[in-house]
Amino acid sequence: MARGILERLDAGEVVIGDGGFVFALEKRGYVKAGPWTPEAAAEHPEAVRQLHREFLRAGDDKLENRGNKVTFTGAQINEAACDLAREVANEGDAMVAGGVCQTPSYLSCKSETEVKGILKKQLDVFIKKNVDFLIAEYFEHVEEAVWAVEVLKETGKPVAASMCIGPDGDMHGVSPGECAVRLVKAGAQIVGVNCHFDPMTCVKTVKMMKEGVEKAGLKAHYMVQPLAYHTPDCNCQGFIDLPEFPFGLEPRILSRWDMHKYAREAFNAGIRFIGGCCGFEPYHIRAVAEELGPERGFLPAASEKHGNWGAGLEMHTKPWVRARARRDYWENLKPASGRPQCPSMSAPDGWGVTKGHTDLMQQKEATSQDQLKQLFDRSKSH
Amino acid sequence: MARGILERLDAGEVVIGDGGFVFALEKRGYVKAGPWTPEAAAEHPEAVRQLHREFLRAGDDKLENRGNKVTFTGAQINEAACDLAREVANEGDAMVAGGVCQTPSYLSCKSETEVKGILKKQLDVFIKKNVDFLIAEYFEHVEEAVWAVEVLKETGKPVAASMCIGPDGDMHGVSPGECAVRLVKAGAQIVGVNCHFDPMTCVKTVKMMKEGVEKAGLKAHYMVQPLAYHTPDCNCQGFIDLPEFPFGLEPRILSRWDMHKYAREAFNAGIRFIGGCCGFEPYHIRAVAEELGPERGFLPAASEKHGNWGAGLEMHTKPWVRARARRDYWENLKPASGRPQCPSMSAPDGWGVTKGHTDLMQQKEATSQDQLKQLFDRSKSH
Amino acid sequence: MARGILERLDAGEVVIGDGGFVFALEKRGYVKAGPWTPEAAAEHPEAVRQLHREFLRAGDDKLENRGNKVTFTGAQINEAACDLAREVANEGDAMVAGGVCQTPSYLSCKSETEVKGILKKQLDVFIKKNVDFLIAEYFEHVEEAVWAVEVLKETGKPVAASMCIGPDGDMHGVSPGECAVRLVKAGAQIVGVNCHFDPMTCVKTVKMMKEGVEKAGLKAHYMVQPLAYHTPDCNCQGFIDLPEFPFGLEPRILSRWDMHKYAREAFNAGIRFIGGCCGFEPYHIRAVAEELGPERGFLPAASEKHGNWGAGLEMHTKPWVRARARRDYWENLKPASGRPQCPSMSAPDGWGVTKGHTDLMQQKEATSQDQLKQLFDRSKSH
Amino acid sequence: MARGILERLDAGEVVIGDGGFVFALEKRGYVKAGPWTPEAAAEHPEAVRQLHREFLRAGDDKLENRGNKVTFTGAQINEAACDLAREVANEGDAMVAGGVCQTPSYLSCKSETEVKGILKKQLDVFIKKNVDFLIAEYFEHVEEAVWAVEVLKETGKPVAASMCIGPDGDMHGVSPGECAVRLVKAGAQIVGVNCHFDPMTCVKTVKMMKEGVEKAGLKAHYMVQPLAYHTPDCNCQGFIDLPEFPFGLEPRILSRWDMHKYAREAFNAGIRFIGGCCGFEPYHIRAVAEELGPERGFLPAASEKHGNWGAGLEMHTKPWVRARARRDYWENLKPASGRPQCPSMSAPDGWGVTKGHTDLMQQKEATSQDQLKQLFDRSKSH
Repeated sequence: MARGILERLDAGEVVIGDGGFVFALEKRGYVKAGPWTPEAAAEHPEAVRQLHREFLRAGDDKLENRGNKVTFTGAQINEAACDLAREVANEGDAMVAGGVCQTPSYLSCKSETEVKGILKKQLDVFIKKNVDFLIAEYFEHVEEAVWAVEVLKETGKPVAASMCIGPDGDMHGVSPGECAVRLVKAGAQIVGVNCHFDPMTCVKTVKMMKEGVEKAGLKAHYMVQPLAYHTPDCNCQGFIDLPEFPFGLEPRILSRWDMHKYAREAFNAGIRFIGGCCGFEPYHIRAVAEELGPERGFLPAASEKHGNWGAGLEMHTKPWVRARARRDYWENLKPASGRPQCPSMSAPDGWGVTKGHTDLMQQKEATSQDQLKQLFDRSKSH
Repeated sequence: MARGILERLDAGEVVIGDGGFVFALEKRGYVKAGPWTPEAAAEHPEAVRQLHREFLRAGDDKLENRGNKVTFTGAQINEAACDLAREVANEGDAMVAGGVCQTPSYLSCKSETEVKGILKKQLDVFIKKNVDFLIAEYFEHVEEAVWAVEVLKETGKPVAASMCIGPDGDMHGVSPGECAVRLVKAGAQIVGVNCHFDPMTCVKTVKMMKEGVEKAGLKAHYMVQPLAYHTPDCNCQGFIDLPEFPFGLEPRILSRWDMHKYAREAFNAGIRFIGGCCGFEPYHIRAVAEELGPERGFLPAASEKHGNWGAGLEMHTKPWVRARARRDYWENLKPASGRPQCPSMSAPDGWGVTKGHTDLMQQKEATSQDQLKQLFDRSKSH
Repeated sequence: MARGILERLDAGEVVIGDGGFVFALEKRGYVKAGPWTPEAAAEHPEAVRQLHREFLRAGDDKLENRGNKVTFTGAQINEAACDLAREVANEGDAMVAGGVCQTPSYLSCKSETEVKGILKKQLDVFIKKNVDFLIAEYFEHVEEAVWAVEVLKETGKPVAASMCIGPDGDMHGVSPGECAVRLVKAGAQIVGVNCHFDPMTCVKTVKMMKEGVEKAGLKAHYMVQPLAYHTPDCNCQGFIDLPEFPFGLEPRILSRWDMHKYAREAFNAGIRFIGGCCGFEPYHIRAVAEELGPERGFLPAASEKHGNWGAGLEMHTKPWVRARARRDYWENLKPASGRPQCPSMSAPDGWGVTKGHTDLMQQKEATSQDQLKQLFDRSKSH
Repeated sequence: MARGILERLDAGEVVIGDGGFVFALEKRGYVKAGPWTPEAAAEHPEAVRQLHREFLRAGDDKLENRGNKVTFTGAQINEAACDLAREVANEGDAMVAGGVCQTPSYLSCKSETEVKGILKKQLDVFIKKNVDFLIAEYFEHVEEAVWAVEVLKETGKPVAASMCIGPDGDMHGVSPGECAVRLVKAGAQIVGVNCHFDPMTCVKTVKMMKEGVEKAGLKAHYMVQPLAYHTPDCNCQGFIDLPEFPFGLEPRILSRWDMHKYAREAFNAGIRFIGGCCGFEPYHIRAVAEELGPERGFLPAASEKHGNWGAGLEMHTKPWVRARARRDYWENLKPASGRPQCPSMSAPDGWGVTKGHTDLMQQKEATSQDQLKQLFDRSKSH
């Protein structure tokens, strides 16, 4: 049996996570964008199994059965998903995690009893299938995330808590540091963020969480599972408000070299559970595992098919392509988009909608860089 | 048994191809960039089978066992690859094609006998495995492509011939129209281009082929299998010379909506065999199949997981995301790269190297748009 | 004689300033970039007179004899400059201002006595020539700016104080609000910022000044004289650290329509002394005057040669050019750079040099957008 | 008296022209965009005189009284303009040229008699004022340009002929080479292009003219007077069709370093009359004169205020700004636009309007890079 998540983190090891399944399976034809429901585990198990295997082979230590982010997943599908994850995990030294997410009920009723009831129901299958640890993830409101941690703690399993927030904090303006403190006090052994923002923004947010936890005299492990998209133009609600979401995000996809920078930055920030979310493909996870190869002492299986920093080009017939077989070439490359009629940043939709129509309209008319900068700045100031 | 390729094309049907396997498998961890050898068919058949299935499910009518573009693939691997393709093809109404590519020997010895001998050897396994038709593809020199067609014709199977050239023609400056005429005269029933350039450039090149063939009073079917990358800044040797090749191409990846435009443009140009090459993922092929759904009278299986023009967003909780569930939104979106420190076009490496050191140096120092334009223009003029 | 600056501002009028002379004269061939010394007033008075006239004609109410920003200007040159300004001011209803700037001595010795002595000496000519009011401008350190105000106050003339800071405050981290409070307490009747940042950043900074002054229960008028360059990628030391400074700033030049937005934003922020600095040409000032025409009740003389919102195109022979003769066209246009090999943002040089070599090196290696964002964010946090 | 234009060119000297007056005067507030009429010569002679002086000081050898491009200029204004030009020319060693442009009558009536009559009338003042040579410029149709040359030849003065065409030739598709041959045969001693396209495109077009003339066994001198805007996205009708024309062209303005490249490229192409048109400011002409200083043996007067390749920065207090005082820094800089929400290329308006509504509509809907490329390519093919 695989060693536990806390055992690994307590020993100072780096744990590498997987990428987000629904985006990857959408591109493969098995998940529908919009509902994003994970019925593929039951309908096309071979496709899900194959994706699990690819992430595992790329260095992933954790195979997760993620609950649906929006609607409820039937128990049958969840069972199938758990079985699939366990089956593939057993092919390597990987753990199986069970994940629960924010509930639509939180915003509609805000009843702690009701929300906790829903979350508990999702847990049944994870307990039956004996997952190795639990993750409360994709929470925009720390209050609900705390409720989730309280529910998960009752199982006795290790509990990780991950919010989908950026440096501006949760949707009520609770700062990342304060969010983390509340989650650790509620019993989470691992805290961090996932989804909604690009890697560097997420690392920055987790750093703020760590500072908060340490300032409060508490202790925790830290996790990060960002997007594989560059999103410097996001407002505080993340990439969903970008006009490219979800069908025009291609030009924002991180290269493997961007992933090296992310992994190093996350490691330097003291984060030891390093994974991915929407947009990650197996080669992105491999790049994380390769960057941290020196620290971990080994490379993932998939590195048998990957030259170090472009080394696979050393035998190319063209000398100028051979000249690309070196680290500094790829580290310094500023890749072109091939799209000269497209901008490099967008204005997010829907900004300020909670503040009423006027603000929204201003946003929609924000056509200049000056206004973009104001948007950035406004997002910092509240 | 599936209906034959010529039967379909003669009936005026649209035949949809697959995408390039080596790039897709590289991202999944099974092919090494640089050598790009296809040993995955033997080493990890489940990964190759799964990718075949995804393309088939996305609308692909043709499962190809592509010979390696650079080195020789052992007969054993080729056999395994053929068996895999046939197995998956039989799950649907798809054909299996066998592909041969340009040989390194052509440039080193230019002996017709030697080159034909090498090509013949590659054919053995395709005949043994009884593929449905043959493709001579990825040829930069029309002379060698003609030799390949002559070899393939001896099998009695339908023969397609596809060059990796752009509007400037082959590496000796033979125009696309003239290349096509020679290939048709050599016996190819289908002619076209694959790889090296973006979809619109490839469609344009095939149009030039068609004009040449028609002007010569000949008849043929036409095929196109472009990159899934925007490459307006390519010189005549294609995307390999772009500084981003092969590890920094992400910002150039086509969206599904770009694929709709490509499919429509190809159809309007009279091309009926429409597929993809490096960079294509299953959802790209699905977009081609969906664009041509009205003409074909059906949608691919994977469309069960895809709303029409973003329709999957109709139920989103945010009104501004719901507002994206319409065709004109995605058709007119100019997606941002999220990379404000990156340009939109690159200067290709190695330009003019055949003309000696001076030209190459000029190229490396081409820093202004003016010079870029000159490069474009020079590429037109020879 | 023209009405005084305070008389106008107290009456709630908008006072429009000129643009920066040294940049404009450099492009005309009369000032050397680097030293930026203003000997043109003596050497080529007709060129300086003409530029004064153009700004006056564009709507400028204030003709300034700006002291040199770096070295000392001989009294003879200053006298000539004052005479020129007065001569042209008398052609209209304009005021003449005398300006003093930060001294190199402040950083080298930090002696209040020495600095004040230098500033006093610069004043002599302004008193002799009886300028209408005085401006202490282009100060990076509030301490020195306060000393300047104290010196200027002794003349009995109205005193304006303008710093070249952004939202991060002065070089010791004193916030814009606190800077403004100290300047008002020292006796400045008008406070604001000039140079170093783009219009929207400057307006934002002056807003912060106004909030500080009002919170302290004080009263003041506000002024803004920004760059005519878009500089969203500046760090806290402004556009000098951008790699394009000073000879590659062309793609950043604001259009007249950008100036309309700036003027409106400044007006809405309660700023009533609205001018420009480096990069401003007469047509930029005219755009400011035209945007505020409804409030002021008149248009500048140069508007006789300018159609309202592109109205001059109404008679064009091409219908699609005629279609540009309307406000919303120009307000929404996102102008292309015509430079596809160039990025839209740069990484500033020299970042963090005060914090030592390591930071500088990190800066120089900041190649990704993620790092850019960190730079932005770092600049916010101190 | 100054040496004549042919005397200089025959001696192999480089003759440097001025920039376009109407654009420069528009920014200074003296010309109205749209009509672009040159009444400033009569209304504000000091402004026109000053601009002449600045170009002269920047290196300009030719002061031109340009006829209006669209409407007719009254004789009185033309006389004033000639007097101004001669007055300033006499301050240096400069020549005065008289220019005539295409007539609206050509397109409406196409009567040779009528067009020649109009052109002749424009000549009267030039003869009366005894200009040094004549230029027929800004012609889109070679037929009309030939008529103009025939009229100008009757004066006995040296005649230059300049068309506003690009590599695709005149509006009837007559190639640049053929246009040049016809103009030389009609008697023009100097041929070339002006306006409508960026420097590199114009140089390329004049090269095609030169090749045509030489192939025909004729002899001529060559001139070029391009825009100071980067316009790689122009179609065959030039920058007027770009959506930014004329009020949003700022991000396209060439830097002084771009001008160095232009001057060198023009010189290398054998062009010896090198000037500018719309967008040129005095410092642009100075950059041309500085690049060709070694060949000419002297620098222009305005170079007393300009360090060689940024040398003026050598004494800057910041080391990273001092590091910019060198040639390779500015030659390799890729200047950012500071506009991350803007693209780097536009789609020209009105493309294909002569081919009817359908094409125009296609153009307006051209949203992807692929379509942009097609537009480029279409423009090459006719």
